Order: sequence, then structure tokens, then C-alpha cells
Amino acid sequence: MEYIVQPIGVVRSVLKDPADAPKQGALTEQEAEIVVDPAYLPALEGLARKRGKIIVLCWMDRADRGRLKVHPRGQEELPERGVFSTRSPHRPNPVSLHTVTLLSIEGNVLRIRGMDAIDGTPVVDIKSHSPELDG
Amino acid sequence: MEYIVQPIGVVRSVLKDPADAPKQGALTEQEAEIVVDPAYLPALEGLARKRGKIIVLCWMDRADRGRLKVHPRGQEELPERGVFSTRSPHRPNPVSLHTVTLLSIEGNVLRIRGMDAIDGTPVVDIKSHSPELDG
Repeated sequence: MEYIVQPIGVVRSVLKDPADAPKQGALTEQEAEIVVDPAYLPALEGLARKRGKIIVLCWMDRADRGRLKVHPRGQEELPERGVFSTRSPHRPNPVSLHTVTLLSIEGNVLRIRGMDAIDGTPVVDIKSHSPELDG
Repeated sequence: MEYIVQPIGVVRSVLKDPADAPKQGALTEQEAEIVVDPAYLPALEGLARKRGKIIVLCWMDRADRGRLKVHPRGQEELPERGVFSTRSPHRPNPVSLHTVTLLSIEGNVLRIRGMDAIDGTPVVDIKSHSPELDG
């Protein structure tokens, strides 16, 4: 069985290259935008009332989907580990998870802080964040 | 642009019907199993060392992908909200996010606690959880 992901938007960021990306976005103050396809505008209703954190899922379109083991990032001397025990972008279904701070929404453009995905990354989903569920 | 999700495993649970599912799995003690396709066994290496929480992404294959607004669950009298401001399974790309407790791994079977997805739900990804990144 297969399922088809149709991106609902795109990341706009000054980060243009994976090598520029901070190791973990949530540990940075990197600001970025999510430009949502206007077809999905109704799905954004109520999001502006969510102060603080939201969850963004992206499709890491440059990932190597065949890679099942990776060295810890920045620690190539350490042994490889299974990708399911890491946050590597390389994995069979390269859906990345970003818990970011929502700064503002204007029309179909979300301004967020703490985003390590690079410019042009397709956005798959946006969800409310809950410290109880996700913490 | 479209992307293809190929499930890496499946949820095995006593929850057989969406109506049986607790409102939010993480708020329950519901135990379940994830049976990983043996082709992905190498990707599990190192996961057993992760004590505590892990992240599981599923594909909610019964979701209504055309639904952009929903009533808050169990509160049908309240006005509809955009699905991106909720955790509803109904959304354009129905990838669900579950932060669960890993109890054990035997071969390709993970035993977990706090899972609200029903029996047969396709699993898309497994990731390490980090209170710093995800909390």
C-alpha cells in the first residue's frame, strides 16, 4: 500500500543549503516563513489564537530514503545507528518534525522561529502543539 | 509535486474502531505494538537504548483529506476550527504524531504505551524524542 503526500505549502528561509542549516532548529533562533497554498486557507482558522508553539511537518525532499543507518551528525567517528533512533533527515519516509514558535500570521504566510528546514522545503502538515501530549 | 509514502510497519492494538479510540492516546495508558517490516530492521538499531519516549508517525488511512474545518472533538456545539489548529485525524495529509513510551523491542516488534491509533494503522516513521526539541 502506498499513500500520496501533496504539500500544503513551502518553507521560505535565508537557509539555502543543507550545510547552512543549524544542527537542530529548535535550539536556534532562526526565523523563517511558511507560505501556505491559498487553497488551504480555511484550515488555518483558529491557529492565530494558538500562542506559542506549533508543530510543522515537512517532506525532506533531498533525503536519501535508502539510508537505514547514519553516523550521529557532526560525530562521524562514532558508530552508525539506525535512523529510527535519530532525527536524521535520511529515512524511508523523510517526514521531519519541527516544534516552532508562531510569531504571526498574515493571510497565508506564517512567520515562525526555531526552524532548521531550508528554503523551498515542502510543508506537509501544521498541528497544534500540546506540552501534555508532546512534551 | 507529490511524494509517495511507503509504510514501514503497522499498529497492532486492541482498539479496533475509531469510536473506541481514547480522545488522546498520550493521556491514556493504552498499550499497543508496532510491527516493523523486517526490511527496516537495521533502522531500529540503537532504539532500544532510548529509554522512555519515542515519536511515532502514522498515516490515518480512514481520514477525510478534504475536510479543512472540524468541530472540536466531543464538543460538536462549538464552532468549527481549521484543522491546522487542531489534532484532528482529518487533514489534507493525514500524518498523525504520537509521543509514546517505549516498553520493549523484540526483533521487529515494539511494545509501546500511550497509543491511540487503531489496529491496522500504517506506520510512516519512528524518531527519537527530545524534551528540548519537542517539549
